[in-house]
Amino acid sequence: MPLETPPGYRPLDESSLRPFLASLAPLSARLGGRQQDWKITEVGDGNLNLVFLVEGPGGGVCVKQSLPYVRLVGEAWPMTLKRSFFEHEYLRMQTPYVGERMPEVYHYDPALYAIVMERLSPHIIMRHGLIAGRRYPAFTEQVTDFLARSLFFTSDLAMPANRKKALTAVFCGNTELCKITEDLIFTEPYCLHERNRWTTPELDGIAGEFRADIPLKLAISRLKLKFLTSAEALIHGDLHTGSMMVTEDDMRVIDAEFAFVGPMAFDVGAVLANLLLAYFSQEGHATGADPREDYEEWLLDVIERVWRRFAEKFVALWREQAAGDAYPRMMFGDGPGEQALEQERLRVIGRLLPDTIGFCAAKMIRRILGLAHVIDLERIADRRQRALCERRALRLARDLMVKAKDYPDIADVTGAARRMRRRSASDL
Amino acid sequence: MPLETPPGYRPLDESSLRPFLASLAPLSARLGGRQQDWKITEVGDGNLNLVFLVEGPGGGVCVKQSLPYVRLVGEAWPMTLKRSFFEHEYLRMQTPYVGERMPEVYHYDPALYAIVMERLSPHIIMRHGLIAGRRYPAFTEQVTDFLARSLFFTSDLAMPANRKKALTAVFCGNTELCKITEDLIFTEPYCLHERNRWTTPELDGIAGEFRADIPLKLAISRLKLKFLTSAEALIHGDLHTGSMMVTEDDMRVIDAEFAFVGPMAFDVGAVLANLLLAYFSQEGHATGADPREDYEEWLLDVIERVWRRFAEKFVALWREQAAGDAYPRMMFGDGPGEQALEQERLRVIGRLLPDTIGFCAAKMIRRILGLAHVIDLERIADRRQRALCERRALRLARDLMVKAKDYPDIADVTGAARRMRRRSASDL
Repeated sequence: MPLETPPGYRPLDESSLRPFLASLAPLSARLGGRQQDWKITEVGDGNLNLVFLVEGPGGGVCVKQSLPYVRLVGEAWPMTLKRSFFEHEYLRMQTPYVGERMPEVYHYDPALYAIVMERLSPHIIMRHGLIAGRRYPAFTEQVTDFLARSLFFTSDLAMPANRKKALTAVFCGNTELCKITEDLIFTEPYCLHERNRWTTPELDGIAGEFRADIPLKLAISRLKLKFLTSAEALIHGDLHTGSMMVTEDDMRVIDAEFAFVGPMAFDVGAVLANLLLAYFSQEGHATGADPREDYEEWLLDVIERVWRRFAEKFVALWREQAAGDAYPRMMFGDGPGEQALEQERLRVIGRLLPDTIGFCAAKMIRRILGLAHVIDLERIADRRQRALCERRALRLARDLMVKAKDYPDIADVTGAARRMRRRSASDL
Repeated sequence: MPLETPPGYRPLDESSLRPFLASLAPLSARLGGRQQDWKITEVGDGNLNLVFLVEGPGGGVCVKQSLPYVRLVGEAWPMTLKRSFFEHEYLRMQTPYVGERMPEVYHYDPALYAIVMERLSPHIIMRHGLIAGRRYPAFTEQVTDFLARSLFFTSDLAMPANRKKALTAVFCGNTELCKITEDLIFTEPYCLHERNRWTTPELDGIAGEFRADIPLKLAISRLKLKFLTSAEALIHGDLHTGSMMVTEDDMRVIDAEFAFVGPMAFDVGAVLANLLLAYFSQEGHATGADPREDYEEWLLDVIERVWRRFAEKFVALWREQAAGDAYPRMMFGDGPGEQALEQERLRVIGRLLPDTIGFCAAKMIRRILGLAHVIDLERIADRRQRALCERRALRLARDLMVKAKDYPDIADVTGAARRMRRRSASDL
C-alpha cells in the first residue's frame, strides 16, 4: 500500500517535471528551447530524496524533491515531506550571511515539497574528490567562511533575542529529521539495533566492545543531551563531505534538511569528522602509482586549518559585528572592558573545541558502526584493508569522545590521528 | 494617548467584572448569590497586572488580567497582553505534574487576557510571612516537589524530543517577558541605566564598584548566554517568594507569565536568592521583643534543605520515571550500566549547583541595584540599617557569582552567608 501524501503532492518524474518547469516562466527562460528538448537525469545518491538535473540549451537547474519515506531504506521507513520546507527555510535564512556558499534558489513549491535551485557545474560531491585524492586549495577558506558566518550571525552574539527565538520556533518543527540524528548518531551505534551494520566479522569484536564501553556511552549521552538542549545557532545539521559540492576554486553547501537551532560545535565537528574519515580511508585507495602519503598530510593540514581559521573568523565577527543580546557592548564599553571581552572571546571559542571534538567523534563512529556509511570506506574493496582503516578511525574516535579535554589544541587531534594511522591490525 | 489594544480587550473594573463572571455559569454557581452581592477587591501588588479577589456567599475566585503596560512603571513602558496566554499555558502544561502546588484554573478568556482561578485562602504572599518572621514547616518539601517535578517532567529526561520541541516552540513566543529578565537581571544592574535605583548615597560606592567589576560582568554575561541558549525545561522564570502563597501547611506557586523553556538552575536559584535576601534582611526587622537569631538559622537551614531535597527528588524521578530521549534506558540496561548511570545522575545534579548559585547571585543583585526591589529590604525604615543588610547581600552575591565553583556544597553557601551576616559596615 503506498504511503498517504497530502493532496497536490506527487513524486516527480521525467514526464511530470517538464510541464512543471515549463509552467514557471523564469525557469523555462533559464533552460531555453522547448521542454521536450530538456535533458533530465535523476542523480539522488543521498539517503533521502529525489534529485533531478535538468539541462536545456540555455542553462540548467537542479530540482530536489522530498519523498514520503527514507530513500535509503524504502517505504518501510516513512519520513515527513516537510523536510524540504526546513531545507528551504535554512537556505532563506542563511542566504544573507553565506549565500555565495550555497546554491541559489530559483523556486520553492510547497505542495510538491520541491526546491528548484542552481545547477552546480562542474562541481562534484567533495567526498568523491577526496576518494580520488584531489586537493581543493580554496576549500579551507570557504568552508570556514561558511561555518563562522552561518553560526555567528544566527547566534545570540549577532541576533537580538526576539528574532533568535522566532527562528528557533520555526525549526522546532523539524523534529522528525532531528530524531534521525538522535537515533542514528547518538543512540543506535552504542546498542544492539537491527539498523546497525559494520564490516563483519572483522569489526564484530570492536562493535561489541563499544556497546559495552560505559565511559563511551556516558560521553555520547552527554553529547546527545547537548544536541537536545543547546539552542546556540541555526546549524546545518548534516555537514559532511557529501553535503558539499566542490571545484578547485569553489565550494557550496547543499542538503540542509536537518537544520535546526542547535549546538554550533555539531556543524564544525561534522566537517572535521568527515575529513578524518577521508584521512583514515586513504591507505585503502593508495596504489603503487598513486601513493597517498602526501595527500594524507594535506588532509591533516586542512583539518588543523579548518579549526584555526574558523576560530579566528568567528572571533573576528564577534569583535566587529556583535549586535545580539549576549555580552552586551554597553557592559564592556571602556578600555579594560574591551580587553577582558577579547579574552572572553578566546575563552568561549576555546571551550567550543572539546564539544567539537566530541561531536566529531560521534560522527565518525556512526559512519562505521551505524546505519549510514560513507563511500570513503565502503569503496575499499579489500575487506581486511577496509576493516583496518575503520578500526583506526574507531580507536581514535573513542579516545576523542571520552577524553576530549585531553586535546586542548587541534594539533593534538591531528597528531593522534597520525600516530593511529601507523598502528597495525595487531595493535588495534 | 491611551495604548492601543486589540478589539474585545478592556481593563476590567468592579462594574465590568460582575457581569463577566455572572455570564460564566460555573463561576457564577461557585460564587453563589446575586452578582451585586459579590465583594470585589483589587489587590495587584505585583509589578505587572490587575488582580481581583471576588467573594460571594458560596465561595471566592481570583481574576488576573494583563494590562497593556508594566504596572510598576506605567503606560510609558508598554507590555504585551499575551503574557496571560503564556501564564495560562504554563499552568496548563504543568498541572499534570505539579497541579496541587498551583491554583486551580477555572476559566481563561483569551480576548480579555484574563485568567479566573482559585482564590487561595487563607494564604498570604510568602515574602510577607518571612518579613514577619513566620516559619513554614511544609515549605521545603512542597517547594522541592514543585521544583523537581516541574523541571524533570518537562526536560529531555522525561519528555520525548518531539513533545519537548513543541513545548519549546510555544514559549519561544514569550520574548517580551524574557526580555524583561534579560535586561533587568542580566544587564542593567551592571551598567549606568536610568531604570536602576539603590539605597543612596550609602550604596553609591558599591554600585559603582559593581559597574566596574570586570570578572563580575563576565560572570553575569555567561549566565545571560545560558539563559538565552539553554533549553532544558519549562521554567517558571520568576520564582521568588512573592510568587508563592503560603499557609502553615500549604504552598502554591503563582505568576508564571515569565515562563519559557530555559535553564533549570534559574528557577532553583530564584528560590535560594529570595531566601538569602530574607536572611540578610532579618536584622532590619528584629526588635528587642522579637529577636531574629533563631529565625535566621531556620532560614539557612531551609536553604540547605531546599537544595538537598530538590537534588534528591530530581535524581529519584530520573531513576524511576525517565521516559525521554536523553540518556536512553536501552543504552544502560545492564547492571554496570545502571550503576554508571546512577553516578551520572549525581554528576549531572552536582553540576547544576554552580549554575544555581550563579543565577541565585544574579537574582540577589538585581533586587538591590536594579529596577524592581523586594520589600524584605525596602521595608527596613532605617536607611543605614537597610544599606548594611543590602551590602552584605551584595558582597556575598558577588563572590557567589564570580566563584560559584568554590561552593561545591550548599553548606558552603550558607556558611559564607553566616560569616557575611557577622560583618560590620566598616568591614564591607
